[in-house]
Amino acid sequence: VPLLAWLERSVSWSSEALLNLILLEPREIANDGAVSLSGPRAEHIIQVLRARPGDTVRVGVVDGGVGAGRVTTVTDRTVDLQCELEVAIPPRPAVDLLMAVPRPKVMRRLWAQIAALGVGQIILTNASRVERNYFDTHVLSETCYRPLLIEGLQQARDTRVPTVFIRRQLKVLVEDELDALFGPGLRVTAHPGIGQPLSETIRARAGQRVLVAIGPEGGWTPFELDLLAAHGFQTADAGPRALRSDTACVAILSLAHEALRAGSPSVE
Amino acid sequence: VPLLAWLERSVSWSSEALLNLILLEPREIANDGAVSLSGPRAEHIIQVLRARPGDTVRVGVVDGGVGAGRVTTVTDRTVDLQCELEVAIPPRPAVDLLMAVPRPKVMRRLWAQIAALGVGQIILTNASRVERNYFDTHVLSETCYRPLLIEGLQQARDTRVPTVFIRRQLKVLVEDELDALFGPGLRVTAHPGIGQPLSETIRARAGQRVLVAIGPEGGWTPFELDLLAAHGFQTADAGPRALRSDTACVAILSLAHEALRAGSPSVE
Repeated sequence: VPLLAWLERSVSWSSEALLNLILLEPREIANDGAVSLSGPRAEHIIQVLRARPGDTVRVGVVDGGVGAGRVTTVTDRTVDLQCELEVAIPPRPAVDLLMAVPRPKVMRRLWAQIAALGVGQIILTNASRVERNYFDTHVLSETCYRPLLIEGLQQARDTRVPTVFIRRQLKVLVEDELDALFGPGLRVTAHPGIGQPLSETIRARAGQRVLVAIGPEGGWTPFELDLLAAHGFQTADAGPRALRSDTACVAILSLAHEALRAGSPSVE
Repeated sequence: VPLLAWLERSVSWSSEALLNLILLEPREIANDGAVSLSGPRAEHIIQVLRARPGDTVRVGVVDGGVGAGRVTTVTDRTVDLQCELEVAIPPRPAVDLLMAVPRPKVMRRLWAQIAALGVGQIILTNASRVERNYFDTHVLSETCYRPLLIEGLQQARDTRVPTVFIRRQLKVLVEDELDALFGPGLRVTAHPGIGQPLSETIRARAGQRVLVAIGPEGGWTPFELDLLAAHGFQTADAGPRALRSDTACVAILSLAHEALRAGSPSVE
């Protein structure tokens, strides 16, 4: 089937978001598996995948299973699919992110990348060196970030939408809420050039969830570092070079996943 | 010295490019070490570092050593420094990048990030799935990319400007030029989910230079993959998730450096 071959090939790096998986909301799927699409996903199936009736596209349900959608009808602007979904749900990524809110332009770029790299939850927080107006921005509203998270999941073929928590008080978050949000597992503060290598630190604790903390522009204050240390965060070295926070975020999530894979007994 | 303390602290993740190092062109430095700056670097020293005469800023020479610049004079828009530079030159990063030209918007964002992550050379190439007009863009001109590379180096405190090669024929590049450009060392084509893990592949060959190939949107064609394989490229798995090419580029360079560090006998 040429379309499936295309889909396999398309699991590759791409400059623009590819819909390697068409993600559906549960309410969009009828009891018999029928789905009627219009909008960007239909346009993608029509214009990029060039699907014809009888072709199959890869589908998934938000926070549910993945499967195949057989194209039954195509018009100029709509596509009907008949979907069969696996019962198994992809596991939630084992990495969580605690990040001081970066400037809005940076945060807008990061949402899809974070979802594509895979995190279970995104905890955004205030910090001394975060500017107050970073919180009063559309970029932190669910109407803005949810479509970007979905875009990242469709790129990476995942269905698990990261949970997002936004907190204006780091101290309250760390002292009163974090144990409930994260619980047991490895907590690390990533720094350039300080501490044991991040990958070694995570490998040594593979099998546990990992929460990685990334500070604001200019870094955490000594008070904030003490607060994090007092609540179980180890300092780990993510390499000798000082990176912009968006580059650092992608680099650190990538290192964390690779270290979990390498440290896991179930790795091939 | 408060300023030096600030400089140390500032080696941290930041949302905007920080000048963690003020990079100077050799021609800007008088024989006695005196430097007169105006423009963005002077503005940074005046407005962000708030340096006063007698303070010291961290400086480096493009493709040369790093050192200290003592501020001798500050005006509204100019700064004079008296520089002392180390003779030793930072080593060239041991990772090289061969990348199919991504779309201009993506490439513009990547230049500084690639330089900050650290590569010895950036070889940009055509490929079947690269659109022809990607080559006819200002983003591939040295007047555009050199300042972005310098920005990334100043962020990461490096002085070694990556060498840039841009080639319109992948076959000619790989068959006739690559041995001279790269020579011995590990050549890998990074793919999601195919081959041995990238980090293991690189660890096993630590001590050698690494050339990482990243394909275009939609991937390399089978012909291109065969061509790369015939010229020594191993396929390596950079994780199970399909990423956008800019995310993949940052993730893969980060993994490559970490694997070299972990595999190196000189690691702490």
